Amino acid sequence: MLPTIKWEDDKIIMVDQRKLPAEEVYIKCLDYTQVAEAIETMVIRGAPAIGVAAAFGVALGVKQISDRDDLDAEFARVYRRLERTRPTARNLFWALEQMNAVYKSSRCLTLPALKQKLIDKALTIEKEDISRCRKIGSWGKSLLKKGQTILTHCNAGALATAGYGTALGVIRAAFDEYEGITVYAGETRPFLQGARLTCWELTKDNIPVTLITDNMAGCLMRRGEISVVVTGADRIASNGDTANKIGTYSLAVLAQENNIPMYIAAPLNTVDFSLSSGEQIPIEERDADEVRKICGCDITLPDIKVRNPSFDVTPAEYISAIITECGIAYPTYKDSLEKFR
Amino acid sequence: MLPTIKWEDDKIIMVDQRKLPAEEVYIKCLDYTQVAEAIETMVIRGAPAIGVAAAFGVALGVKQISDRDDLDAEFARVYRRLERTRPTARNLFWALEQMNAVYKSSRCLTLPALKQKLIDKALTIEKEDISRCRKIGSWGKSLLKKGQTILTHCNAGALATAGYGTALGVIRAAFDEYEGITVYAGETRPFLQGARLTCWELTKDNIPVTLITDNMAGCLMRRGEISVVVTGADRIASNGDTANKIGTYSLAVLAQENNIPMYIAAPLNTVDFSLSSGEQIPIEERDADEVRKICGCDITLPDIKVRNPSFDVTPAEYISAIITECGIAYPTYKDSLEKFR
Repeated sequence: MLPTIKWEDDKIIMVDQRKLPAEEVYIKCLDYTQVAEAIETMVIRGAPAIGVAAAFGVALGVKQISDRDDLDAEFARVYRRLERTRPTARNLFWALEQMNAVYKSSRCLTLPALKQKLIDKALTIEKEDISRCRKIGSWGKSLLKKGQTILTHCNAGALATAGYGTALGVIRAAFDEYEGITVYAGETRPFLQGARLTCWELTKDNIPVTLITDNMAGCLMRRGEISVVVTGADRIASNGDTANKIGTYSLAVLAQENNIPMYIAAPLNTVDFSLSSGEQIPIEERDADEVRKICGCDITLPDIKVRNPSFDVTPAEYISAIITECGIAYPTYKDSLEKFR
Repeated sequence: MLPTIKWEDDKIIMVDQRKLPAEEVYIKCLDYTQVAEAIETMVIRGAPAIGVAAAFGVALGVKQISDRDDLDAEFARVYRRLERTRPTARNLFWALEQMNAVYKSSRCLTLPALKQKLIDKALTIEKEDISRCRKIGSWGKSLLKKGQTILTHCNAGALATAGYGTALGVIRAAFDEYEGITVYAGETRPFLQGARLTCWELTKDNIPVTLITDNMAGCLMRRGEISVVVTGADRIASNGDTANKIGTYSLAVLAQENNIPMYIAAPLNTVDFSLSSGEQIPIEERDADEVRKICGCDITLPDIKVRNPSFDVTPAEYISAIITECGIAYPTYKDSLEKFR
């Protein structure tokens, strides 16, 4: 299992995903503000992993409270700091809400007991995230078969979760079950999660992976070289509209045009049942230099105007199925997702 | 006018497009093999510019023949060397055929007279390329209007031609005619011609340009932020199927899905009337390190398997019109292109 994130007594350890695969560097977060910064700067990324990091961040923040009189104010401060790190992934808010519920029901305990409750809850969130990924893999593999070539985008792997992965969980489970499974990884500009993280993860597991630039996917689909597309998700509206890494919408349209199934693999805590459609999902726009520079090197004029939406929304009509830990949801998603709720 | 390529007596001067925009370096080709290498290594690129470079290469190759007895063998050697530089762009072969016709009809002249004929022909090819681009611009602007936002891909600009550009020729002409014309440039991985060359060219001309990664185009189309797509072409089959920089097919599918017109801008010498469909167009696959490295820096595992098709084929049914120097061809292209022949 890859070391995405780990709770250690009075610190949280994460592999610095900005530096992979060139360097395997571990970062120690000694307080909740460092956890928040790690999420913001993408030391850790991937919707489920962000959720786990936020839960650990709350546990660490409360663990460092010494004065019981400040408890509510300090908890609110920790919560709000972690809440404003990144706007799109549902799992962040889900994890914070889980921690908040435990806080509310346990705030009358002694301070040490409350702290332990929150640590236990965060560790449970971590553990359950892995088990959800394994179930997603198990359901998902039933949609795949021997000899297929799977295109994935960004990194929805062990590094994007507490372990095993969502889209890569499906790929791992299929690879273990069937012969001849191979993968195309889209490099995923601007942050190159596909080139850097997915290629690294799959190579570590000896799963055959071929890297392409994002704009090659359509051409390979048309040539019949891709059997199926599987990606993760950052937030799914109750009608199945799915926000995921920028470029996912394009892959979904191209898949439909070429009669290729497009699957989303995500735990149910990615579904935001409060939203009726994907139009309501807030989409983060990140810094222009993520596009202008690669490896610290200017690839264009240093002051060129840039757009940098980190996510796009794929309307439900382009999605063949949503693979969750409770089973596979098919259209109409409003009904099928609700049934899993 | 930008200095793409220039004939100078006994050498050919080109701006090194691999180094733009960080450095404006000029390369001197002192013989035809250096011209061939400049085409292969993408010092110069863009279908019409490659054609001009090949014509100059033939003129330079023949200019350096000293022994009339070797004439036919030496001409064949020069021709074959330039012919095998890159397989996809039609303009390369068109220019070589033009030079070959002049050679055949003039080979009984004195050697100095033959040399001058070939130089004159190459200079005519260069001059006519610019005038074709201006006519393409003039026709193309009639398809655009005030306030539109145009998405382009790769670089089909002055740097891809002898000057002015094909797709960027259309954009330049529209910008001169209408208020509020703005451009989105797709960065165009792996070689980043959009980020490096299109942004540089348009900024020099004060045409407002915003850079995006290739995988953002679909999302912006869906949001209604793109009015029209205009790209160049490397080879067009007689039925209108169009080979162009990898990623063009994806943009065409996404444009159609979002009811956005998709225009190809190219001179008629890009059309290969010998091919009945795009399936017959040879597609170059280039070196894996073009994908694995950016600015000399590994963006993935150094030995990861890679696919690197440089071009894709957009079937004619996704193309709203083909803008040539003779006018605008609409479907059915077999008829409309034939009429311009």
